[in-house]
Amino acid sequence: MSIKTITITGAAGQIGYQLAFRIASGQLLGQEEKINLKLLEIPAALDALNGVAMELDDCAFPCLETITATDNASVAFQDCDYAFLVGAKPRGPGMERSDLLLGNAEIFSAQGKAINAYANRNIKVLVVGNPANTNALIAMSNAPEISPNSFTAMMRLDHNRALAQLAAKTDAHVTDIKKLTIWGNHSTMQYPDIYHATVNDQKVINLISLDWIKNTFIPSVQQRGAQIIKLRGLSSAASAASAAMDHVRDWVFGTADNNWISMAIPSDGSYGISEGIIYSFPVICTNGSYEIVQALEINEFSEICLKASEAELLEERKAIEHLL
Amino acid sequence: MSIKTITITGAAGQIGYQLAFRIASGQLLGQEEKINLKLLEIPAALDALNGVAMELDDCAFPCLETITATDNASVAFQDCDYAFLVGAKPRGPGMERSDLLLGNAEIFSAQGKAINAYANRNIKVLVVGNPANTNALIAMSNAPEISPNSFTAMMRLDHNRALAQLAAKTDAHVTDIKKLTIWGNHSTMQYPDIYHATVNDQKVINLISLDWIKNTFIPSVQQRGAQIIKLRGLSSAASAASAAMDHVRDWVFGTADNNWISMAIPSDGSYGISEGIIYSFPVICTNGSYEIVQALEINEFSEICLKASEAELLEERKAIEHLL
Repeated sequence: MSIKTITITGAAGQIGYQLAFRIASGQLLGQEEKINLKLLEIPAALDALNGVAMELDDCAFPCLETITATDNASVAFQDCDYAFLVGAKPRGPGMERSDLLLGNAEIFSAQGKAINAYANRNIKVLVVGNPANTNALIAMSNAPEISPNSFTAMMRLDHNRALAQLAAKTDAHVTDIKKLTIWGNHSTMQYPDIYHATVNDQKVINLISLDWIKNTFIPSVQQRGAQIIKLRGLSSAASAASAAMDHVRDWVFGTADNNWISMAIPSDGSYGISEGIIYSFPVICTNGSYEIVQALEINEFSEICLKASEAELLEERKAIEHLL
Repeated sequence: MSIKTITITGAAGQIGYQLAFRIASGQLLGQEEKINLKLLEIPAALDALNGVAMELDDCAFPCLETITATDNASVAFQDCDYAFLVGAKPRGPGMERSDLLLGNAEIFSAQGKAINAYANRNIKVLVVGNPANTNALIAMSNAPEISPNSFTAMMRLDHNRALAQLAAKTDAHVTDIKKLTIWGNHSTMQYPDIYHATVNDQKVINLISLDWIKNTFIPSVQQRGAQIIKLRGLSSAASAASAAMDHVRDWVFGTADNNWISMAIPSDGSYGISEGIIYSFPVICTNGSYEIVQALEINEFSEICLKASEAELLEERKAIEHLL
């Protein structure tokens, strides 16, 4: 019997509290795969984390073998096969963006080092904690013995949000929409690109006005998170956890035929995007690996948006360069 | 294509926020079954509920067809196939138990009437909101055109908690433990009964001292909820939602061979328990129906515990009898 080790950081937080139960219920890897779940938190959240661990026990999940609740990264990443790096330092009042980047850089460089020292060499890492792309870059840079291809950041929530918006607009189901891409940084500079997308095999751009795309769709995807905070009084947690499940599941089991998804991965120079940053591209996954979809036509509008997101990531990189 | 309608009340609350996403992800009925999800809240929680609905949209769940967010019970229960009645009035400061019972009686009599008027005649109802057994009784009594067998209350969280405690004590996995029963009321008067339980086909009572059962196990199951509140600062939500999934899934798809589960159902007089209350028994489910496991030997200790829980339920009933 094979047992997989799955690590969740920030596991007592809102997203972690959703993610841990969906994973432990067998929804990530299937009911046949046994799971050792390792939950990492900061010391101040250890009581809450122990409460989460008790609740996980109380679910009597058939595929959950062991639960480890710890504030020690070397324990949390021991033998880790799949890591969900959710915990991050939130932006406090009066905090500059550079302070935010640096505060998170400390967390993610320590976790990168722990992954390098203790994790399975074929680990798959998904960074959810913001600024996710640059946090993933830092973790990757601090794990030189692990393939850079093991480090990704989440753009799937934006991807799913864009699917939902397009489905509502075209009276279709989300599953009818294919070949959508969210390019770039997981920030308001992300670029939701519908130029290659189809709804029931018809080109989206033949069905919807460019005016709606540029002035309603793109801003609404970019600002969806803020809208949900306004209504719920809390940021998106369940939908973020669900997107994290989708991201890793597709990475492990493959994307659907005739479709692709959006994943932030180390740039290899495709589409003229600088290497040395974690950038979201359209990717196809097979046999546990991803490959960038190549040779898509990029029009002038898209090119400007791709470059703007790249510029933001290069700037973020500058702020933490001494830690790479 | 068949579509099932699933209603969750109190859907913007902590348990609802867990439950809605696990159901919409296809974990309750399987990926092949399409779902119309109807979410009910009180008017004051409608903003938060709309935020939850947006997040459900943003998950791009393949089997989720429509989402309805409403404060109108007649809308929420229209064509309902499965109802999770989670929302309930919590016990406020200085509130007497009778006030709590009456406050909830109003909610559940209104929902029973709406179910009677609008739901599928073969609806399955699970009451999670406390006092769950008596709330279920009130809903049932207000839905005379629906079979009483459609109304159940949740004892599965206690059942799963007891499995986890026994597994830890015997160094077994939760799936190795069978034929455990939680009898009676979902309150601290519940009775976790291990006299028929087995661990890897050995009788639990031959492996564990009665002293541990009576003085550690039973109180720890009864008081588990309070312990989790102490650590998390919030009551059990994810584990309650998970137990609700288990309850309805087993009811629909059947319990495992050579095992039973605990469900609070209308008493038919089995084991000498008065009719006219909703009481948890050991049950086996097949083809969408449950049947009480009969002819279990009940020793003197168990008999006292069964009767004490019955007495509590009869007293709860007295407080709301005029509404039945």
